[in-house]
Amino acid sequence: MTSSVSQWSPEGSVPESIRKLLPNIKSNVGPQSALVFIQIVSLLKSQRRTGWVDRGLPSSQVESISDHMYRMGVILMLLPREKVDVDRCVKISLVHDIAESLVGDIPPYSGVTKEEKHRRERVTIEYLADLIHEYNPKFANEMADLWWDYESIRTPEARYVKDIDKFEMIQQAWEYEQAHGLKYDLSEFYNSRLGIVSPEIGELCDEVIRQRTAFIEAHK
Amino acid sequence: MTSSVSQWSPEGSVPESIRKLLPNIKSNVGPQSALVFIQIVSLLKSQRRTGWVDRGLPSSQVESISDHMYRMGVILMLLPREKVDVDRCVKISLVHDIAESLVGDIPPYSGVTKEEKHRRERVTIEYLADLIHEYNPKFANEMADLWWDYESIRTPEARYVKDIDKFEMIQQAWEYEQAHGLKYDLSEFYNSRLGIVSPEIGELCDEVIRQRTAFIEAHK
Repeated sequence: MTSSVSQWSPEGSVPESIRKLLPNIKSNVGPQSALVFIQIVSLLKSQRRTGWVDRGLPSSQVESISDHMYRMGVILMLLPREKVDVDRCVKISLVHDIAESLVGDIPPYSGVTKEEKHRRERVTIEYLADLIHEYNPKFANEMADLWWDYESIRTPEARYVKDIDKFEMIQQAWEYEQAHGLKYDLSEFYNSRLGIVSPEIGELCDEVIRQRTAFIEAHK
Repeated sequence: MTSSVSQWSPEGSVPESIRKLLPNIKSNVGPQSALVFIQIVSLLKSQRRTGWVDRGLPSSQVESISDHMYRMGVILMLLPREKVDVDRCVKISLVHDIAESLVGDIPPYSGVTKEEKHRRERVTIEYLADLIHEYNPKFANEMADLWWDYESIRTPEARYVKDIDKFEMIQQAWEYEQAHGLKYDLSEFYNSRLGIVSPEIGELCDEVIRQRTAFIEAHK
């Protein structure tokens, strides 16, 4: 799977302040390791989503990676569906970007290939799963399973969460445009509509696009 | 239940930018109302947790309300437990502060009584449930049910999430202290340890307090 020689490693990306909390013995360290995991998850609170920052939005006003995953979870609960396991969808949404805690939110134009981005995320999930394995082996396996499910889109739940990931981003683009009066060009984000498969998510997305079109007309 | 005459209402707290998206007819407006709900939920991304801001932490570095709920969801998945329904715990955690989108994060020292704070949150949950009822009556009822469960601590799941709410805050206080080198006095937040009932959450919390005590000693 390794597409290129890379110096990047999850261990090397753990901030020094967190690294020094790692237990320095290897057994009976469940709670300490769990706390390190929890503190790594906190990096999702302080990292802003790159797509918005790179379009010039003021960083202090931009959502965090965890803000995005939070609202995906709520939207997944809100949507009326019959054929997917909602509880599993919610858990996938909370886990799907968890590797970004250490990898960061790498945009397509970063120079890092899609394969290398995927590799970094995969080894980070393995690293995080190792870290919590003694504390809770069941969750270590579940986290990796939920993540792989999403990455490989191997269940209807993963497919559904993929659609919500796009929709939540489009809705956020629209909110930033409302707040900043089209000062920043966020048009390209709406192209993700094309990748949305589920009719009810497409319906919401089309209503957003309708509202936005009216807004742009009114601002001409 | 109304403890005092109050002018506060959820309708009056919806920002004008969102209010104008409300459907102006009363039927077949499910998707539009759902989008208004989703945009109200977004206010949880932009509101910083009051406890930290009021202690002087730089607002731009302070977690949002949704950041807090996100990590609670992940911690709930991480903890090894046998006797609670984890999926329900996760959903309670995502909903428990959702009324703060309109009510705000009111601290105990704000001058608003506990009863009035509860009343505002209750009427906001009713308002939000009304808003999405046509779109998804099942979730409208579920959201209100999960919120009431938490507020009244009527199930083991709600009890568990209450403990995690306290623990997540204590862990966050500790992270801010690590980052800012005890510049801000966050001691009082650790008192919430006394309210934690579940042994495994208490264990994690005690490890945090042990780490913090060593940190304070080292900084003397």
